[in-house]
Amino acid sequence: MKTETLIGKSVPRIDSIRKATGAAKYTADLFLSGMLHAKVLRSPYPHARILDIDTSKAEQLEGVRAVITGKDTKGVKWGVFPYTQDHGMIATDKVRFIGEEVAAVAAVTEEIAQRAVELIDVTYEELPAVFDPEKAMKDDKLIHEDRGTNINVHVDIDVGDVDAAFGEAEIVLEDVFKSAGEAYAMMEPYSVVADFNSEGYLDLWIPNAGPHVRAKALSNLLKMPLNKVRVRKIDIGGAFGGRSEVSPSDVVTALLSIKSRQPVKLVLSREETFTATRQVHDMIVYLKTGADANGMIIARDARVIYDGGAYSSTGPIATSVPFYVYEETYKHPNVRYNGYRVYTNKCPRGMYPHHGRAYQVAMTTHMDMVAEKLGLDPMEIRLRNANRSGDHTATDSVISSCGLSESITMTAEMSRWSEKRGKLPKYRGIGMGSMGLMCGFPMGFRSGATAFIRMNESGQITLFTGMVDNGQGNENMVVQITAEVIGIPMEMVNLVNADTEMTGHDPGAYSQAATFVGGNAVMRAAQDVRRQVLAASAEMMKVAPDELDITNGMIHLKNDNEKSFFIARAARYAMSNGGNIVGKGSYFPKISRDREWVKNPRGQMGGTYSFNTVVTEIEVDPDTGIIKMLDVWAAHDCGKPINPATVEGQIHGIVSRGGVATYMEEIDWDRGQVLNPNLLDYKVPLATDMPEMDVELITTNDPEGPFGAKEGGLTASMNVYKAIVSAFYDATGVWLKELPFTPEKVLKALAKKNN
Amino acid sequence: MKTETLIGKSVPRIDSIRKATGAAKYTADLFLSGMLHAKVLRSPYPHARILDIDTSKAEQLEGVRAVITGKDTKGVKWGVFPYTQDHGMIATDKVRFIGEEVAAVAAVTEEIAQRAVELIDVTYEELPAVFDPEKAMKDDKLIHEDRGTNINVHVDIDVGDVDAAFGEAEIVLEDVFKSAGEAYAMMEPYSVVADFNSEGYLDLWIPNAGPHVRAKALSNLLKMPLNKVRVRKIDIGGAFGGRSEVSPSDVVTALLSIKSRQPVKLVLSREETFTATRQVHDMIVYLKTGADANGMIIARDARVIYDGGAYSSTGPIATSVPFYVYEETYKHPNVRYNGYRVYTNKCPRGMYPHHGRAYQVAMTTHMDMVAEKLGLDPMEIRLRNANRSGDHTATDSVISSCGLSESITMTAEMSRWSEKRGKLPKYRGIGMGSMGLMCGFPMGFRSGATAFIRMNESGQITLFTGMVDNGQGNENMVVQITAEVIGIPMEMVNLVNADTEMTGHDPGAYSQAATFVGGNAVMRAAQDVRRQVLAASAEMMKVAPDELDITNGMIHLKNDNEKSFFIARAARYAMSNGGNIVGKGSYFPKISRDREWVKNPRGQMGGTYSFNTVVTEIEVDPDTGIIKMLDVWAAHDCGKPINPATVEGQIHGIVSRGGVATYMEEIDWDRGQVLNPNLLDYKVPLATDMPEMDVELITTNDPEGPFGAKEGGLTASMNVYKAIVSAFYDATGVWLKELPFTPEKVLKALAKKNN
Repeated sequence: MKTETLIGKSVPRIDSIRKATGAAKYTADLFLSGMLHAKVLRSPYPHARILDIDTSKAEQLEGVRAVITGKDTKGVKWGVFPYTQDHGMIATDKVRFIGEEVAAVAAVTEEIAQRAVELIDVTYEELPAVFDPEKAMKDDKLIHEDRGTNINVHVDIDVGDVDAAFGEAEIVLEDVFKSAGEAYAMMEPYSVVADFNSEGYLDLWIPNAGPHVRAKALSNLLKMPLNKVRVRKIDIGGAFGGRSEVSPSDVVTALLSIKSRQPVKLVLSREETFTATRQVHDMIVYLKTGADANGMIIARDARVIYDGGAYSSTGPIATSVPFYVYEETYKHPNVRYNGYRVYTNKCPRGMYPHHGRAYQVAMTTHMDMVAEKLGLDPMEIRLRNANRSGDHTATDSVISSCGLSESITMTAEMSRWSEKRGKLPKYRGIGMGSMGLMCGFPMGFRSGATAFIRMNESGQITLFTGMVDNGQGNENMVVQITAEVIGIPMEMVNLVNADTEMTGHDPGAYSQAATFVGGNAVMRAAQDVRRQVLAASAEMMKVAPDELDITNGMIHLKNDNEKSFFIARAARYAMSNGGNIVGKGSYFPKISRDREWVKNPRGQMGGTYSFNTVVTEIEVDPDTGIIKMLDVWAAHDCGKPINPATVEGQIHGIVSRGGVATYMEEIDWDRGQVLNPNLLDYKVPLATDMPEMDVELITTNDPEGPFGAKEGGLTASMNVYKAIVSAFYDATGVWLKELPFTPEKVLKALAKKNN
Repeated sequence: MKTETLIGKSVPRIDSIRKATGAAKYTADLFLSGMLHAKVLRSPYPHARILDIDTSKAEQLEGVRAVITGKDTKGVKWGVFPYTQDHGMIATDKVRFIGEEVAAVAAVTEEIAQRAVELIDVTYEELPAVFDPEKAMKDDKLIHEDRGTNINVHVDIDVGDVDAAFGEAEIVLEDVFKSAGEAYAMMEPYSVVADFNSEGYLDLWIPNAGPHVRAKALSNLLKMPLNKVRVRKIDIGGAFGGRSEVSPSDVVTALLSIKSRQPVKLVLSREETFTATRQVHDMIVYLKTGADANGMIIARDARVIYDGGAYSSTGPIATSVPFYVYEETYKHPNVRYNGYRVYTNKCPRGMYPHHGRAYQVAMTTHMDMVAEKLGLDPMEIRLRNANRSGDHTATDSVISSCGLSESITMTAEMSRWSEKRGKLPKYRGIGMGSMGLMCGFPMGFRSGATAFIRMNESGQITLFTGMVDNGQGNENMVVQITAEVIGIPMEMVNLVNADTEMTGHDPGAYSQAATFVGGNAVMRAAQDVRRQVLAASAEMMKVAPDELDITNGMIHLKNDNEKSFFIARAARYAMSNGGNIVGKGSYFPKISRDREWVKNPRGQMGGTYSFNTVVTEIEVDPDTGIIKMLDVWAAHDCGKPINPATVEGQIHGIVSRGGVATYMEEIDWDRGQVLNPNLLDYKVPLATDMPEMDVELITTNDPEGPFGAKEGGLTASMNVYKAIVSAFYDATGVWLKELPFTPEKVLKALAKKNN
């Protein structure tokens, strides 16, 4: 086997310099000649009927080039196919949340656009609004009348014999857990640039996680052929699942450009980004757990209510994935899961990487409670219930490579767990959280990725991939893979990505598909290039291709490094002999491609699974209610790290977002109005809030992964807050059942115990 | 054989709307955020030594971001490889023409850049200058001291036994012919945008005829790897050979961006475009011709002096091509050609499609003089001397498909030649010009083109080709070919071209390579896609690929149009089964790839040759000296027209440029200073100057051309002015021996005859 020269090395990321120096360009930085500026008129009511919209005064304002309302949409509604399609992107008959798009203007300056928006007269008839999902479930006042219910999604999973298992259980627990809504709080406000040209092509620059999926949705919504809707992503200031799917801003900007025949830029304000783009679901979890005397969790019955906001959006996935990621981690012989996503008069909610926060806390806390009752070490009960390679999940996925147990014992060792758990001073505690996560996911033919590569006359290559980098280092990852496979330095690889006109289909930065699916397609394209280079070289040298190797861009006999020539010669020879070097590759994870998401799904969910455990030691201040993570230890099975520094960096980010942030982040609502729509009132972690971190990577060499690699860091995302809950109990004897863990809640919980 | 549905149809060009509506964006329209503006300090002397450059005051001016001089170049000099490399792009030791680049500034506004340029102090020592090439040949004051002579290029061709042939000749003629320098006078002033980014990549937008060739030259000049120099061309306002090769403006803008680390735009003024970009060579032709009693031209001896200006540039090609295009047209049993390109203190001269104007006039006029002496019809002497399919040229190229004789007889018929020649009223005349022209040309591995195509999930495709469209319709041509080959509507083809990062090598819009070479590569890539689509479809349908056909994007059994499915299904099937559809193709013309240009060349010059004849009827006003073309008839052998309207449009353009313009266009010099550097004083034809035109296309179905196609219109470029000379003699009995045919010259010639 060939020694890898780049894979597994922490090479500096190709995007570091521009991001560190501020040279990176974001969508709002774009300027096209003749570009107009857009502003949006938004609903002031959480629920109201639109009786009339008068845009005449706005249209007459000097400098206004286009005014649109819901009438300008094509009547197509969006929602994750093949589930509910309920969102027309600009309100027509009704508004359903404060901030919903009602009309929009493109004008020569932002100021004129804003003035014009203020000149639009809308006559509303206010309707009763509902903000509590449990109330909405029973309410006969419907948010979408045509649907006959406020229940948007019902995920219904029933595996084994749950009732019988509860009958056999030694321990049965019942509790309620909650998590509040959160904002994605990306640094970059949402921005779109649209340019509809005279040939009927629409160019869009959007900070998004999957240009190909986005282009398809926009092609449907705008009734334009797919090849005439070009979606690009340039540098992006955060995504976190909130930029996964098509947004009303995309449609608004596109329609304004189509109507004005000029380029249009829309940059949302911070307030609009907080109130009118997607948010994270509020959740209520009713959980019943049954365990046997050995600490094996033999029965689970969960009823989970998701506050979905006004539209379906990615609801079917957001409502089911929390279940899947837990079943990928621990055995589930008998389980019943009823996930209800309910319409309320709030802005629509979307995917979030810390999948199902209250649900994960509930499931793990019950496990810890069982351990407590049986006198088992929390580490031990995790090991007993942990999935292992070859295990089947409840919905019938097979786990292939699996470093879960190893991650548990490794973090225990790193943290000196057994010296600490139950043995630390009062108000100090140590806790553990573990999780598995699928790589790749069922989305029909969109589950797979494609890539292609062309070699120029100097032997340098351009890699074309739909791959999206939202900050994870995916761009660097594909360049590292390509350079390694072909045998050239990374400097010889130019990358063209995240552009639907230039690149083949890629699922995007969803569901841990980037390295495992996209990286695999890139690897195959690179292998195809290598084959072609070696074939041309062999023909030139009159030897067999397998006698040759490529090292650092030089072609040589395997056993003779001396007689070598530059790869450019092979490229030119191939060009000149009818076979310009262009390689291609596609990869589909071995999954049940058309697996159902909602109704008792069965079949292979992920192409493989990655695993992670986090241990944290915390200190609780009983006077202020402030939790402080002192140390975090993480062990991560990413199959094999393509770039260890990048994987570690990902985990550092997750400790911030899925750890520190869980002391503070929460949307504050008042009758459908967000009260803290800015970064002063909505608290996010600062560098000074971060704990010490120690990350180890576990190599399981996944048989399907490129160079053995799986997902590169995200799996930790559900572990930090679970470890905090576990550590908090160790520190105080109190179970936290509600996210976020704000000082107020901490103080209340401590007071309740002390009473 | 399949009936073609798109090829041969005058479909509307894909670029028409944006050009007709003014929506097209040219390089000067580009705006990048943080972009600086550049201005250039130019030499006020035709020849001077630079003693000192003091940029300190300019550097201190508020708003200035970078100042460069020749010291900032890497010391690399440019000229067509492997010939003279003498041009460092910014003057260092000496300036050699008025307008030469001495220093440049990038600043936050154009005004500040201009003020800064004026603050640069240069101390010169004036040197004696030479403007007359014949004087320069003998001069011992050298423009390039290191070269030891002012002769830059000497093309030396000697075939057969010229002296013996003259001995046998019945008729021997000797004359001198001249043509003045011209400007390219493109509508779009030369503009460059350069963006050197923090990762060390340089992006360049340049109105140019061959991005791949340009990128290579810049990669050498800037000492940067080829893949880090990205050259793009967007819409372009004219090229005419004047945008063939790297320009000092490219280097200046690149260096300013590299130094300032900001994007920089340079837009030359009209005056700078006239005086400091390339121009067309002045020529003096000493021609001796020998003919036998049958009118066969059996001996030629030509001594041609080219005024090359200050640098070598594309000189070796510009000095030899006039010979080649004539030998491609008429038999040359014995010929001697000495072409001297001489340095003078004028701006460098480059390629021009009306190759060797005075030379073509000389060669054809002597043929007409022979006919006159022998009482032969000028049409008849052309037919006797014309090359035919299978003939060898003097330098040993074989002519394949050849519609020359047919074009002569066809235009004679169209114009009712035999009723008119010698029979029209005084001051009216009819004349004929014919020419053949090679398609493709020897440039090592750069002679060939490559292309590739990817199909998306909707069966739509993106075609990647280096193909350049300078207005000829090349973009439409490749889209038509691709759609025809695959069997899809043109609307399903997206085109990515003329961008070195995105596309494979293509020679560019040089030497009639676009359709014949580039089009062939595209055709092969499309055939590869079609093969893959049919293979996937056959697998789906469980039939053999050759049982299937694709019509208008639908796949069906050849004998059953009813049962069909959309091509998207095949694309998705292929993606899902490990073979995303990506096609590739390359094509090299069957030429002597490394054929010498200058020293007695031998071997195959073009991959094939196209042929054209133009007949024009003119009227001469003896009082004003104004020539008026009344009618133009053209017959063009383009093998097969891909888009007849486009080919006809090309010929219309040439009638303007190579016909009407030859009454007026001329650079007016005074001691190295251009006196008419603007479109008020430099006259170009207007729409109202155009004659009636009637164009017929001859189909010879070239065996190598894509769908039988060859060059699509340019061959006419040397025929209109020759036909005018011939018609002028018919009208007045006077031979015009000097281009342009200004009223002043016409009156002089008529006066001379009347005396």
